[in-house]
Amino acid sequence: MAGLRVCSALVTGANRGIGLGIVRQLLQMSNSPKWVYATCRNPKGERAQELQHLASKHPSLVIIPLEVTDSSSIQAAAARVGEHLKDSGLKLLLNNAGIAKLNSLDTETLEDMSQVYATNTIGPLLVSQAFLPLLKKAALGSPGSELSCSKAAIINISSYGGSIGSPSGWDLMQAVSYRCSKAALNMLTKCQSLGYREHGILCAALHPGWVQTDMGSSLLPSSGSVDMSVQGVLNVLSTLSEKDTGTFLDWEGKVVPW
Amino acid sequence: MAGLRVCSALVTGANRGIGLGIVRQLLQMSNSPKWVYATCRNPKGERAQELQHLASKHPSLVIIPLEVTDSSSIQAAAARVGEHLKDSGLKLLLNNAGIAKLNSLDTETLEDMSQVYATNTIGPLLVSQAFLPLLKKAALGSPGSELSCSKAAIINISSYGGSIGSPSGWDLMQAVSYRCSKAALNMLTKCQSLGYREHGILCAALHPGWVQTDMGSSLLPSSGSVDMSVQGVLNVLSTLSEKDTGTFLDWEGKVVPW
Repeated sequence: MAGLRVCSALVTGANRGIGLGIVRQLLQMSNSPKWVYATCRNPKGERAQELQHLASKHPSLVIIPLEVTDSSSIQAAAARVGEHLKDSGLKLLLNNAGIAKLNSLDTETLEDMSQVYATNTIGPLLVSQAFLPLLKKAALGSPGSELSCSKAAIINISSYGGSIGSPSGWDLMQAVSYRCSKAALNMLTKCQSLGYREHGILCAALHPGWVQTDMGSSLLPSSGSVDMSVQGVLNVLSTLSEKDTGTFLDWEGKVVPW
Repeated sequence: MAGLRVCSALVTGANRGIGLGIVRQLLQMSNSPKWVYATCRNPKGERAQELQHLASKHPSLVIIPLEVTDSSSIQAAAARVGEHLKDSGLKLLLNNAGIAKLNSLDTETLEDMSQVYATNTIGPLLVSQAFLPLLKKAALGSPGSELSCSKAAIINISSYGGSIGSPSGWDLMQAVSYRCSKAALNMLTKCQSLGYREHGILCAALHPGWVQTDMGSSLLPSSGSVDMSVQGVLNVLSTLSEKDTGTFLDWEGKVVPW
């Protein structure tokens, strides 16, 4: 983790679980980013109290309202971050916001399929489009051509559950809407890596582990704490280079089958 | 192709392209199915004239209206096929209906992402759910436990474009909404193979080739005729067995990377 040096980072779905954990550890790093943007749907709400508390102690933490399924909300957030950053770009965009529905194959519905896809797949597409000018600016401002998180990166938080080749935990959780949305997110990540390479932006999908969060525990028995998982994720981010763009890795840096 | 023996088959999106080609060749087979159900959104419309003409010559062809993004339309179609089949089940469900939008990564929209996913991914899920009782009935009526299209099968028409590991044609066609929907359809196929194996239903995803259809040609330069492609697809179907459930194959039977 000591190696991750980014002067700015934005994390979506940052009020709980993995998102909140990432924000917390980014702020605690010895070489902490100058600005950490934490977004959530309702920063004034009860479920954002921990994030608000964190912001009261860390002047480098900026909380921004962002609903990832609402284009105008995304545009407003991007404009606000752009103004705040002034002449610098955004180094690291972490598309972490996600939802899950625990339907079985037989009880899956059109509504849940649509809603989960909108949040978990379309959201990361639209958020990345909106922040692209800021990511390009960050990449342009970095010396060298080698891709890395220190230059500019989009990291999509995916899941083992989205691995078509090795769909873990079927007996415990069918959650077809969730699995389909994450497989599609992996495809989006591949497309972004192909489209944004020329702009100097690294794109990768990461499985953070099944951890003790409201969502994670509802899916499968958790295998570790949020802190452990986030430490792994940030460590992996610090090691990502040219060869890793367009890949799907877990929190220990192991390649996950598509 | 000589080997494919199914007493009933249903093809969605059957008024044009690959779907119409499959219906045509099923009817021409020496061991043609007793019933071929061809569904499309608007059987009375101008774009279904070829299908209507075919039905006027083949009494075993039954045209059924079906809009794959509309739950009540799906329910009505399943009820109608169930009544028509009387005591027998449905052997082969071919989820072929699909759409594509030619946006680039930068111009992709929430609306197109949602619409393409609804047709290409949610549609096959809902149609399979609705026809599941008829597929189960067909499997129960077949001797032996080995999976095959002659017992009962769901075949989802996928695409090389949905291969995350080998996303062909990026320089010619970005079409992120299409690619994400097909990657998600591949995941759905895997889920269906895991969930429906116990019912004796084989599930596979098939890439039919880039062929000369309205949709195929709009995506990439075509590599062959509809007839060639359909001949390949039906040939592959005749060879599918236990080991192929949950796989992604092309029209020549080659495994496609997820």
